[in-house]
Amino acid sequence: MTTVPESRPADLVITGCTTLTHDGTDGAGGIGFTGDSAIVVRGGLIESITTPEAVAALPALERIDARGLLAMPGLINCHTHTPMVALRGIAEDLPIEEWFNDWIWPIETNLTDRDVELGALLACAEMIRGGVTTFADHYFAMDRVAAATEASGLRANLGAGYFSSEGAAGRERSLDFALRLRGAAGGRITTSLAPHAPYTVNDDDLAATAELAREHGLLVHIHAAENAEQTAASVAATGRTPIETLHRAGLLDVDLLVAHGTGLVHGTGSADGIGSSDGGVVADGGVAADDLAVLRRRTGRVAFATAPKGYLKFGWGPTPLRALASIGVPVGLATDGAASNNTLDVWESMTLTALSQKSTQRDPGWLTARQALDHATTQSARAVGLGDEIGALAPGRRADLILVDLTGPHTQPVHDHAATLVLSARSADVLTTIVDGKVLMRDRRLLTLDVPQIVSELTTRLPALTDRTHGRRIQDYDPS
Amino acid sequence: MTTVPESRPADLVITGCTTLTHDGTDGAGGIGFTGDSAIVVRGGLIESITTPEAVAALPALERIDARGLLAMPGLINCHTHTPMVALRGIAEDLPIEEWFNDWIWPIETNLTDRDVELGALLACAEMIRGGVTTFADHYFAMDRVAAATEASGLRANLGAGYFSSEGAAGRERSLDFALRLRGAAGGRITTSLAPHAPYTVNDDDLAATAELAREHGLLVHIHAAENAEQTAASVAATGRTPIETLHRAGLLDVDLLVAHGTGLVHGTGSADGIGSSDGGVVADGGVAADDLAVLRRRTGRVAFATAPKGYLKFGWGPTPLRALASIGVPVGLATDGAASNNTLDVWESMTLTALSQKSTQRDPGWLTARQALDHATTQSARAVGLGDEIGALAPGRRADLILVDLTGPHTQPVHDHAATLVLSARSADVLTTIVDGKVLMRDRRLLTLDVPQIVSELTTRLPALTDRTHGRRIQDYDPS
Repeated sequence: MTTVPESRPADLVITGCTTLTHDGTDGAGGIGFTGDSAIVVRGGLIESITTPEAVAALPALERIDARGLLAMPGLINCHTHTPMVALRGIAEDLPIEEWFNDWIWPIETNLTDRDVELGALLACAEMIRGGVTTFADHYFAMDRVAAATEASGLRANLGAGYFSSEGAAGRERSLDFALRLRGAAGGRITTSLAPHAPYTVNDDDLAATAELAREHGLLVHIHAAENAEQTAASVAATGRTPIETLHRAGLLDVDLLVAHGTGLVHGTGSADGIGSSDGGVVADGGVAADDLAVLRRRTGRVAFATAPKGYLKFGWGPTPLRALASIGVPVGLATDGAASNNTLDVWESMTLTALSQKSTQRDPGWLTARQALDHATTQSARAVGLGDEIGALAPGRRADLILVDLTGPHTQPVHDHAATLVLSARSADVLTTIVDGKVLMRDRRLLTLDVPQIVSELTTRLPALTDRTHGRRIQDYDPS
Repeated sequence: MTTVPESRPADLVITGCTTLTHDGTDGAGGIGFTGDSAIVVRGGLIESITTPEAVAALPALERIDARGLLAMPGLINCHTHTPMVALRGIAEDLPIEEWFNDWIWPIETNLTDRDVELGALLACAEMIRGGVTTFADHYFAMDRVAAATEASGLRANLGAGYFSSEGAAGRERSLDFALRLRGAAGGRITTSLAPHAPYTVNDDDLAATAELAREHGLLVHIHAAENAEQTAASVAATGRTPIETLHRAGLLDVDLLVAHGTGLVHGTGSADGIGSSDGGVVADGGVAADDLAVLRRRTGRVAFATAPKGYLKFGWGPTPLRALASIGVPVGLATDGAASNNTLDVWESMTLTALSQKSTQRDPGWLTARQALDHATTQSARAVGLGDEIGALAPGRRADLILVDLTGPHTQPVHDHAATLVLSARSADVLTTIVDGKVLMRDRRLLTLDVPQIVSELTTRLPALTDRTHGRRIQDYDPS
């Protein structure tokens, strides 16, 4: 309940919804719920959150009657590779080495620009239907992903991935992309520098990337400490954990988004999750490092992205959310690519984050539903470098929001909205998805993308895309 | 591709679907997929699975054009307490003791028959929308659950739960219900004897129940070895594990459905899951028993039901599927009640079973998507005592089936149907639910139940139902 709306026509007025706000005092991150509210949108921004009565006479170009629905910030996919939806389900039940070396990296040598664009378009359609309004993508042929982003109406942070095997060209291409595309799609596109990982990008390239990030004010988006085995291999090969390598390169002193981090070691020298006690880092390599102590010395805005479904599939531990919370490092929710995650369903990531944290911490009191929602909103917005612009429904924020139907039999009755959202509702309950005040899906009908057409063209390209008879790979997976 | 259909009018003909069959050779349980097929239903049974061409001229009372859809056996919820949907989300982030003693058991003293019936009706609506065609329920006021089952059109195995604190009356009431309701709802209702658990039902009552089950040819449905702490408490108090107690009572020599079993001990004296290595049974009580050896001596048809979401929430290990598979004990999928599971979404249980098995076994090769589908179909049907009647689409089986839409952006492209079903699709993709050849939901519209009306009446009753000021409980949770 904030400012009284102005009397000139609003772009969009939503009335009658329950609204998830961040000004309450009843939960993690101040998350609360206000019944029978109204949201006024103008110029792509939320102008006010008020009552239906206050806007009853307000002229508006578009009105949505949202009685029975819940309005919340759009979900943010903090780490994905959108074009990989073309490969969902193609390589299952495999350890990570075979998954990369026998399937994904051979297939990725076949990728064309058109494959990338079609995959990204399909991914955007899936994300809009799942209530995602912003995604952070790290892949190849990113101009095509940018084109798909623009067509879809979504917001994105995009980074052109590179390996040191490409020489200086990779790093330069990543910078060129970041500078050219920054601010594209009417400001909906922001950009990152995107070195692949410490085991595929050398120390000199990492240090140069940190320097470029500082010089140009860019986020760096990287994979690191993806699992305990990588950490052990890094220590065996270099004497440093991946996090120590990032620190030495200066990457903890710029804005940094780290994917995964399930291989973090800290405190007792063990990972925080399933891996800690019987087969994790300690057993593998006797790592006595303390990544938390290293992260505590950061001067940049460092965040992690967690994609729990793949970790469960590969038998890894979880990202250590509790330890990272203890040192104030935000953790955003993510899906990784659909080749490992099978969906780009951030709602599912939210639910699985709550479940896997409770399970591995053996503490039903951690993570609560409100804490999960804090990761999905505030912490995810900070992770993608948009902490002041998205992630909350409040005046002055971008109008990136979703309307969720809680009238289905699987979500009734509602005793506690946070529990209903995290543990009963699912992405298919999102009826309407709005970015910058523009409606991208209304009552589950996509308004910007034609899925049958995209799928039809993509399907004809799959035989060439998935051919592995050539024997090539884009890299060898060998973190040591 | 089986028999040629007869020429008299069929009750229902479904054409153009991909059909999940159990006669293939390419996966666990013989699960395969046949494209462009047709299903002929007559008298509540599947008459044939054939080609669309073979049925083009066949007269039928009802036809469904299922091009683009996948037909599979309806899901089976092998252990639930349907009326508890009224309590979903009311008591979160709590350990099991507080959850039972401070919330659920005080509230359950308030239950009226009408509360039970409304909850069961809402639960049936949720299950039909989630593709469930059969459920096994274990609760109070089961005549009201039977009435809801009849109204909904679902198939169910129902058991009237009892405690030894009721004296002989509980056991007698459970038997009376089982004999009276057996065969009700046109044969869709089967029944069980339903002692609550070895920690609330004494050895004499368990033995008498086994005797009654044998005498009357009834299934017994019970909670046992729900978690590692229960097993340790049982050993400390009686010198026997819960499974040994069931064995001693003769319950392993009748048809038995055991809910949960995450506290099974075997082989090395440890549970099979998360709990095995650092805090499970061994650490808690030094239990050196071998429940697998005991189960191997069973002469009855013994099965388990697994409900993984609650186990993750409470920080328990999983049901040891791999160990149970090694001795030929089927494990069906379940949701438990929505007060702990938040949904009655068996599809979610299927996905979580695959994910939590891979995670805790640290083996991406276990459990495969086909194995998960085998648990969801064949093994679940056996668990509820209907192994010859449901659980597969084949001539002579009951026509309990669902049509799943795989055209959504989150399920495209399809490289492998099993992976798509288990890891990309979700319950909201079920378009049509059919039991005994009768369509209960078509294109996501419920045809037998009125959700707004059910929710409206239930909502008015919630204040009285959830009152805890009286200080009563139906039991104390204290497994020791």
